[in-house]
Amino acid sequence: MLRFSSSLPVDCRLWRYDIRGSLAHVEMLGAQSIIPTEDANTIAAGLRELEGRLERGELGFAEADDEDIHSFVERELTQKIGPVAGKLHTARSRNDQIALDVRLYLKDALRAAQTEVRALQAALIARADEHFDAILPGYTHLQRAQPVLLSHHLLAYFWMLQRDFERLEECFARADVLPLGAAALAGTTFPIDRQRVAKALGFARVSRNSLDTVADRDHLLESVSALSLVALHLSRLGEELVLWSAPEWGFVRLADRFSTGSSIMPQKRNPDSMELVRGKAARVFGDFSALWSLVKGLPLTYNRDLQEDKEPLFDAFDTVIASLQISRGVIETATFNAEKMRSVAGGGFATATDVADYLVRRGIPFREAHEITGAAVRLCENTNRELWDLTLEEWKELDARFDEGVLESVKVEGSVAGRQSEGGTAPQRVREQLEEARTLLAG
Amino acid sequence: MLRFSSSLPVDCRLWRYDIRGSLAHVEMLGAQSIIPTEDANTIAAGLRELEGRLERGELGFAEADDEDIHSFVERELTQKIGPVAGKLHTARSRNDQIALDVRLYLKDALRAAQTEVRALQAALIARADEHFDAILPGYTHLQRAQPVLLSHHLLAYFWMLQRDFERLEECFARADVLPLGAAALAGTTFPIDRQRVAKALGFARVSRNSLDTVADRDHLLESVSALSLVALHLSRLGEELVLWSAPEWGFVRLADRFSTGSSIMPQKRNPDSMELVRGKAARVFGDFSALWSLVKGLPLTYNRDLQEDKEPLFDAFDTVIASLQISRGVIETATFNAEKMRSVAGGGFATATDVADYLVRRGIPFREAHEITGAAVRLCENTNRELWDLTLEEWKELDARFDEGVLESVKVEGSVAGRQSEGGTAPQRVREQLEEARTLLAG
Amino acid sequence: MLRFSSSLPVDCRLWRYDIRGSLAHVEMLGAQSIIPTEDANTIAAGLRELEGRLERGELGFAEADDEDIHSFVERELTQKIGPVAGKLHTARSRNDQIALDVRLYLKDALRAAQTEVRALQAALIARADEHFDAILPGYTHLQRAQPVLLSHHLLAYFWMLQRDFERLEECFARADVLPLGAAALAGTTFPIDRQRVAKALGFARVSRNSLDTVADRDHLLESVSALSLVALHLSRLGEELVLWSAPEWGFVRLADRFSTGSSIMPQKRNPDSMELVRGKAARVFGDFSALWSLVKGLPLTYNRDLQEDKEPLFDAFDTVIASLQISRGVIETATFNAEKMRSVAGGGFATATDVADYLVRRGIPFREAHEITGAAVRLCENTNRELWDLTLEEWKELDARFDEGVLESVKVEGSVAGRQSEGGTAPQRVREQLEEARTLLAG
Amino acid sequence: MLRFSSSLPVDCRLWRYDIRGSLAHVEMLGAQSIIPTEDANTIAAGLRELEGRLERGELGFAEADDEDIHSFVERELTQKIGPVAGKLHTARSRNDQIALDVRLYLKDALRAAQTEVRALQAALIARADEHFDAILPGYTHLQRAQPVLLSHHLLAYFWMLQRDFERLEECFARADVLPLGAAALAGTTFPIDRQRVAKALGFARVSRNSLDTVADRDHLLESVSALSLVALHLSRLGEELVLWSAPEWGFVRLADRFSTGSSIMPQKRNPDSMELVRGKAARVFGDFSALWSLVKGLPLTYNRDLQEDKEPLFDAFDTVIASLQISRGVIETATFNAEKMRSVAGGGFATATDVADYLVRRGIPFREAHEITGAAVRLCENTNRELWDLTLEEWKELDARFDEGVLESVKVEGSVAGRQSEGGTAPQRVREQLEEARTLLAG
Repeated sequence: MLRFSSSLPVDCRLWRYDIRGSLAHVEMLGAQSIIPTEDANTIAAGLRELEGRLERGELGFAEADDEDIHSFVERELTQKIGPVAGKLHTARSRNDQIALDVRLYLKDALRAAQTEVRALQAALIARADEHFDAILPGYTHLQRAQPVLLSHHLLAYFWMLQRDFERLEECFARADVLPLGAAALAGTTFPIDRQRVAKALGFARVSRNSLDTVADRDHLLESVSALSLVALHLSRLGEELVLWSAPEWGFVRLADRFSTGSSIMPQKRNPDSMELVRGKAARVFGDFSALWSLVKGLPLTYNRDLQEDKEPLFDAFDTVIASLQISRGVIETATFNAEKMRSVAGGGFATATDVADYLVRRGIPFREAHEITGAAVRLCENTNRELWDLTLEEWKELDARFDEGVLESVKVEGSVAGRQSEGGTAPQRVREQLEEARTLLAG
Repeated sequence: MLRFSSSLPVDCRLWRYDIRGSLAHVEMLGAQSIIPTEDANTIAAGLRELEGRLERGELGFAEADDEDIHSFVERELTQKIGPVAGKLHTARSRNDQIALDVRLYLKDALRAAQTEVRALQAALIARADEHFDAILPGYTHLQRAQPVLLSHHLLAYFWMLQRDFERLEECFARADVLPLGAAALAGTTFPIDRQRVAKALGFARVSRNSLDTVADRDHLLESVSALSLVALHLSRLGEELVLWSAPEWGFVRLADRFSTGSSIMPQKRNPDSMELVRGKAARVFGDFSALWSLVKGLPLTYNRDLQEDKEPLFDAFDTVIASLQISRGVIETATFNAEKMRSVAGGGFATATDVADYLVRRGIPFREAHEITGAAVRLCENTNRELWDLTLEEWKELDARFDEGVLESVKVEGSVAGRQSEGGTAPQRVREQLEEARTLLAG
Repeated sequence: MLRFSSSLPVDCRLWRYDIRGSLAHVEMLGAQSIIPTEDANTIAAGLRELEGRLERGELGFAEADDEDIHSFVERELTQKIGPVAGKLHTARSRNDQIALDVRLYLKDALRAAQTEVRALQAALIARADEHFDAILPGYTHLQRAQPVLLSHHLLAYFWMLQRDFERLEECFARADVLPLGAAALAGTTFPIDRQRVAKALGFARVSRNSLDTVADRDHLLESVSALSLVALHLSRLGEELVLWSAPEWGFVRLADRFSTGSSIMPQKRNPDSMELVRGKAARVFGDFSALWSLVKGLPLTYNRDLQEDKEPLFDAFDTVIASLQISRGVIETATFNAEKMRSVAGGGFATATDVADYLVRRGIPFREAHEITGAAVRLCENTNRELWDLTLEEWKELDARFDEGVLESVKVEGSVAGRQSEGGTAPQRVREQLEEARTLLAG
Repeated sequence: MLRFSSSLPVDCRLWRYDIRGSLAHVEMLGAQSIIPTEDANTIAAGLRELEGRLERGELGFAEADDEDIHSFVERELTQKIGPVAGKLHTARSRNDQIALDVRLYLKDALRAAQTEVRALQAALIARADEHFDAILPGYTHLQRAQPVLLSHHLLAYFWMLQRDFERLEECFARADVLPLGAAALAGTTFPIDRQRVAKALGFARVSRNSLDTVADRDHLLESVSALSLVALHLSRLGEELVLWSAPEWGFVRLADRFSTGSSIMPQKRNPDSMELVRGKAARVFGDFSALWSLVKGLPLTYNRDLQEDKEPLFDAFDTVIASLQISRGVIETATFNAEKMRSVAGGGFATATDVADYLVRRGIPFREAHEITGAAVRLCENTNRELWDLTLEEWKELDARFDEGVLESVKVEGSVAGRQSEGGTAPQRVREQLEEARTLLAG
């Protein structure tokens, strides 16, 4: 039963937060004269000494059989300073102590995740800048649709990550609330000063309702949900890099360190890193599923079920942070094969819509424009050519209203350059995007 | 295959948004001279006429076998105004049209959900105010822990819903981005004015990257995730009301309209409404699960899988909005049995911690305070009394340091009144909470 | 509230089962003299008349505002035959009536799903037979690994579906239990004959414990779980057909009816059908998620939450049955491009492992064999050839122990033919598989 | 990257299976003369020596930085016996090696889970036998509905677990298939004898298709799904024991070792063990969610994503096995308060339906019977009595057709005894159930 119910193997990683929280609490107990100042000082000194031992690795958790990190700290503290250690628990319960530890952890973890999001965004910007003009086919239904800039494609991920960053920021704001002071569930009869503790620990606000404070797991759920979206974005990036690494595509070659090879099949390079990133997204979703169904239908306030909230939380952060780091490394070191991309970018008459648009812009009705374009495509098919192989004479034969402009519009570069609408793939627009992205990162 | 692939039975409910979006688009096409003004006017008139027929129920979707709502509108429009209808699709694709429809729907749906959240919050405030002084046991582990105010308990749900409201607001801000103009995926060669369309349709911003715009489902995912947290909160409220309706509790009696009875067992009142609210939370989670695993690992940009995104979205909003309405009705009409609550609030020596705190405040060490309190409890157990039945003499016999204060602290009302810490259950604190809640609602 | 709590829009599709169950119940009531035989006959006649009207579409559910299908039937029956209709409910409750309806539905639905599984298996066998000798690259990590037979690849899906079939069979066996007779939850005081009803309705057994009978949702959960695995397999098939339809692969061309094209981009064929199959898998998983979290933590026996069990159940069957039908249609009509497959099957020195195996079989240590093979591959790379382009002389120069056998082993056909291990891709083995598969289907 | 991609910390627990599988493989290689017998013997001896060191704890995984358990074994083996170790990998790949390890583990784990299911079933039977006659209210909607035997209630869980046992058995049968021999994905050119290896390792069958063998994760998915149902059942048991432990119920008192108390609130006993069991169900569901979404949409055959399959598998087994053990301990040691149960079993006029049934059996129409019963209940309500307090005269005044039989039917014991239908709560029926359960356990 002890093994079943102990949370120490999981929550021991909260030790720094547990001690930090206790230091702020005991300082306040002294300042409010809830316990004598000398006792507060003794306890604080004991906590700092314990912190040092743990920091220096002189003490570990492997052999401890305490029920949780609080018991561990309490036992060690008592061994050091004696029964006065018990006063640390004045006006506090384990319920709000663990709530505090988790919020302190969560704030750090959210910041760490945001840092990695920013780093991946920076890598995307750098590669987009480097390969600014490279053209590849844009896909719908995994069919080549229209040529686009590689930089435009890479920046698509920038904006996904930008939304991720915002969501994590909003999670941070809601996590930034001091729970300590809810005590068992109803508040305490001691004259505690929650604002003082909040200030000491860097919380923006204190919680408003003690019952809600003890029962609430929203900050875990929304953070893991936000992480599951980060993971979802990375799974899409992973899918694309796996596809692009396939010999059928050949758009990219991952660096050695992010792929595995075969001693006798030199061209076989398995994009293991991004397969793992894609796969690991699933566990983050599993973490959210576990958390959501854990809380469903639980009455207020604390139920022991909630002890199970920490593993999925830690796992989601560990997984997403590592996946972001790996993805960044992959992006930074990947070799893009712009030539191969360019060679297929115009295939499948990918610029046919440009011809139709060209005609429509000249006042020809949509339906007629499509018919004329279809005829041009059929001509190319029958003669095994691409649209840019047709001469102006041939165009004019198809329809007298064609002029030299059509020769530009059917070119891959012309097609790309033409998409000048806001957010479009024309170089000018993508350059603006890139600058906007840089500004956001800098800000 | 048509039945398998048609989305009309699902997306027909987007018809208002589809027409509204087309009106804004065609107005812009005219203004930008992309199509002649008279054509734009003809199309706009045709769209308005169609809107009127649908509004008045003169036209329905049951017999239509179009593939989607766009085809339906296009076919009807063409029947009315002829081939000029085709010009509506200049500089637009179905991919960004459906993206627009969904965002218009989403913004309305988010506001509707927020309105219902606010209404339930208001109901909670009203009942908290009405039963301000009622006392019930606060629970941990479903064991009575310490007495708390019913108003404090009801307000715990206010704060959960407040976070829900904030999350929905943040979802709204990120949904408030015009996607139209991404065209197939790369932007368009026509000189469209996206800002004009955004303004006409009330969008705060336009999207920055056409590929991301077509591929992005974040706004659906984060909205359904936020709804799943609303549902989670309601499932907890449901659980509590089901428990409180059980004869073992008898804390509440749901109104007839929200419960079902038995003709021959008059005391049996099934809290069906809140059981359903609890159960329906599961389907919202199912909606999120479907959406998340739908998008996982999809390459950019549009893949037909994404057509499956609308049913879970609609279902989540329909379910949560209805669950909020039912919950509000239940809260507004429930009869709380304050007498029953009060009668058990002090049971199980729920004020024993108050005695211990009382002693600690008088300078007695924690451990000793606990020992003395334990002795008092045992005395009561042995003589089949409660703590408030002990006389001052009996207290002094237990320990000479007791004085009259203890008699107050062991009373249920004294226990509640004593928890003056910020966010605690003392009436003064709860009154502040109530005012803060009212201010938030008003704001 | 009525709209919120009514289940008629969902459970009306159970009407056949509801009437069938009532017919068996009332026949038994008469036979056991629990109600007079003439009453039983009157009720049975009334039920049959109602069945006829519903069958012929003379009566519908759209305008009805009954709470559920049982109320609908009861009301209609009473209108027809008067108060005697009430006797139908002797020794029966709605709880076990709906449990019966669902089990009757479930048995039919499981059989229907099995039929579709079998049909897809048959299609796979037929196409495997037709293209028995076609060779394509086998992939790991989406990299070409070793050449395999297309028939071998198609049969891989046969075995997945075979396990699906078995699981559905096991679900059927556990669903094949009569619940009727549990009454409200404790059994009934009337001398009912459950075996008689079971026999009349074709159930193999009757349930053993009335409380479990009312509370149990295992048969729904395990069926939807089994369906989620079917859907998972189809999602993998979908992914592969989408990849193979991409111009980068070009291994397959889906029939017109299962893909959508572009009027002006004739080579663009979107594999919409299989994208939808892949996407719809997600909703089946969503159905399971909803069901699982619905039941989690519910006490015995019936709780109204459980009313929410039917929509995910119906949706899972509808979705998977349709997905199987579409997948079968796609497989039956797809055009495989064996030439394209063959042309890339040996690329990337995919037969290099065959050279190494050849050497090991001749007694050369593994490591040395790999070194020699690596040298051969490098020679090919440097001279821009494939392994089969090397002459015997060149092989012997690389290592004197090579003989004519190597020339066969490096050929794609030789590589395939050599993998004679049980379950391997050698034609002889695949032929055995095909026969075994046929036998299983026939049995 | 190594930390990100290494699976050793997870798959090291498969070491026994890895060595056992290698022993069978190398024995076959020797017997088939694929490698010299002396080499096979050397390798086997080296493997056994390594097994011994690991068994005795002379070697651990903590300091190893190998990529996976196979690399670890290979490295250690090579250190011991030199390059001949390399021959172990003849005709085998890591893909089918890990597939083998997992199946060997899975078979053991399934048996272990079944053993624990059986043990919990035995505990339920023992307690049902012990408290055979105890009566408690049966609940629907958490409202008291009809009195039932506690033994009947406990046996409801027996049947849930019986279905669990069957499902695990079916999972076992499908897991009992040798994968080894699929090699990289296509089979091998070496003359391996898969039947021999299957026999040596105790597998019932060998897999039929090498591609399917490498890609298949069904056995993991269906096992974790089956475990999620076990966990779901335990979550319901947990919910009930938590409710019954609440002072409002007071039906049960968990043993000290399975609950936690309060030094100063002696009556507060938190049912932590069963709260944790309820909560841990969520993580098993999370494991299934992770596995399902991991595999969704993956093409054949091996993709590195699949490395992520082991943690959810191990976690699900560990969690469910521990939860079964804890639940058994709780059931074995719980103190049921039969007196408290009995005292509320008849409350709320729970035997009113018995009166109505009594009347119906005497030929009185259902509706009239309900009216008469309703009058009796109202009489009791008005005079603050229970139905069993009414005298025969009072019954006859309500309706002349009452006779002495009614006095028996309104008694709680009479109500229970009357529910003689198959599967009902009458003692005779429950006794039969108990015997059937015993027989199933014995078998």
